[in-house]
Amino acid sequence: MTDVSRGTQLRPLIKVVGREVTETEDLVIEEAPLTVYLNGKELVTMLCTPGDERFLVQGFLTLEGMIKTTADITKMTVDIKQGIVWVDTLQGDTPSEKLFLKRYLTACCGKGSTAFYFANDTWTAKKVTGEVKITPQEVYDYSRALNDASEMFKMTGGVHSGAIAKEGRFIYYCHDIGRHNVFDKLYGHCLVDELPMDDKVIVFSGRVSAEIVLKVSKMNMPLIISRAAPTTLALDLAEELGVTVIGFSREQRLNVYTHAHRVVRE
Amino acid sequence: MTDVSRGTQLRPLIKVVGREVTETEDLVIEEAPLTVYLNGKELVTMLCTPGDERFLVQGFLTLEGMIKTTADITKMTVDIKQGIVWVDTLQGDTPSEKLFLKRYLTACCGKGSTAFYFANDTWTAKKVTGEVKITPQEVYDYSRALNDASEMFKMTGGVHSGAIAKEGRFIYYCHDIGRHNVFDKLYGHCLVDELPMDDKVIVFSGRVSAEIVLKVSKMNMPLIISRAAPTTLALDLAEELGVTVIGFSREQRLNVYTHAHRVVRE
Repeated sequence: MTDVSRGTQLRPLIKVVGREVTETEDLVIEEAPLTVYLNGKELVTMLCTPGDERFLVQGFLTLEGMIKTTADITKMTVDIKQGIVWVDTLQGDTPSEKLFLKRYLTACCGKGSTAFYFANDTWTAKKVTGEVKITPQEVYDYSRALNDASEMFKMTGGVHSGAIAKEGRFIYYCHDIGRHNVFDKLYGHCLVDELPMDDKVIVFSGRVSAEIVLKVSKMNMPLIISRAAPTTLALDLAEELGVTVIGFSREQRLNVYTHAHRVVRE
Repeated sequence: MTDVSRGTQLRPLIKVVGREVTETEDLVIEEAPLTVYLNGKELVTMLCTPGDERFLVQGFLTLEGMIKTTADITKMTVDIKQGIVWVDTLQGDTPSEKLFLKRYLTACCGKGSTAFYFANDTWTAKKVTGEVKITPQEVYDYSRALNDASEMFKMTGGVHSGAIAKEGRFIYYCHDIGRHNVFDKLYGHCLVDELPMDDKVIVFSGRVSAEIVLKVSKMNMPLIISRAAPTTLALDLAEELGVTVIGFSREQRLNVYTHAHRVVRE
């Protein structure tokens, strides 16, 4: 069990091709627990791929509404070996921190047109205000760039990847076994580096579910490009929150599902 | 927005191929909230693909340790239109029901060899006792059968699928946008139909993460076949809990990662 780099490990396995059997080893994507203590109290244990823990925790706490800005964090200590992060905040306990417990327990308000199922979302989800214009060729280029960036991790077959992009280049790229962790890392990076988000787009490898669209809107990102498919509820939310969803973006093809005015011809 | 069948909806979209732009519509996988009331109290809202709600709820409650057998449920009422399920149990409130709130809040016990991060898992995870033998050709056949079964839903690109299999045939197949929901449905079906599980295998389309291996062990299933990749933590747990993990099972190839003695030559 050798560490090749953070994020993957070599593991033994038996490979069978047709009737041929080989004992070998191969890279496997790393999954590890990361426990967050907020103001001395245990808040959450996330299962994630090691790397960019500070961004992950910053993004997670903000997306869950427990902090508003990076300045709210007075101290963050990361113990990578133990998988523990200690965070102290200016505010101490907040309503969101108490509501976090309720994220699977709150009433299902507005089953019709709106779809905010979790208490904290009503605090942090909002209609996006940013505007961007993008051409199909730019989308194709971003998709290929995401593929190239995750080249090593594609070998492990188990990773989601995402990037923040503007004017043809990636400002930040990350990967994780968890779809949600990718977004927490992306958002955390933007917050820590104080990047405005309403003029950028997200490029993502995974499916666009309702919870992903909620995260995109909380980040005030106007547009998400995904290699994969959206869900019905994601499209309903995207319509309502002003988010452009581009799915099945591969090689020279893409589908625009919502707010297509942001996709323009060359 | 036409209902084609339960589980998918036709949605409008703009398809771009190269420089060609077409307004069209396509099937999108359905994601909808399902709220479970346990003994009159709201317990959880799951985002899932409609279909087999009874199996989903039965499997979920059992995997979370809130009930032990189907006989523990005195009444289950499903309101598909509202997305609500009411469940009454013999026991009323149980320790697991209170611990469910704590699933993201419990101490991270045993970071080394064991890996039970969530309180309820310590109640329900156990070493599998069943034994099965399987040949590579049987694995190839199961993988192809899963592909065939999910043919219609593959068009949506957004679905996970799974099956309970024995002696070359699928006893039950299901799909869902949620990886975990697939397992809840599979388990629920076995429980409701009172099928022994220790002589069967699971065929699954998605990644094998730690939480998936925990579910497999709770079901007392000795072997999981996945089209996708495992994670390091999943393999550690599988080693410890006696679960055979077969990954990257496609066409005429597969990888055996743990407890390979269950895979035999023809």
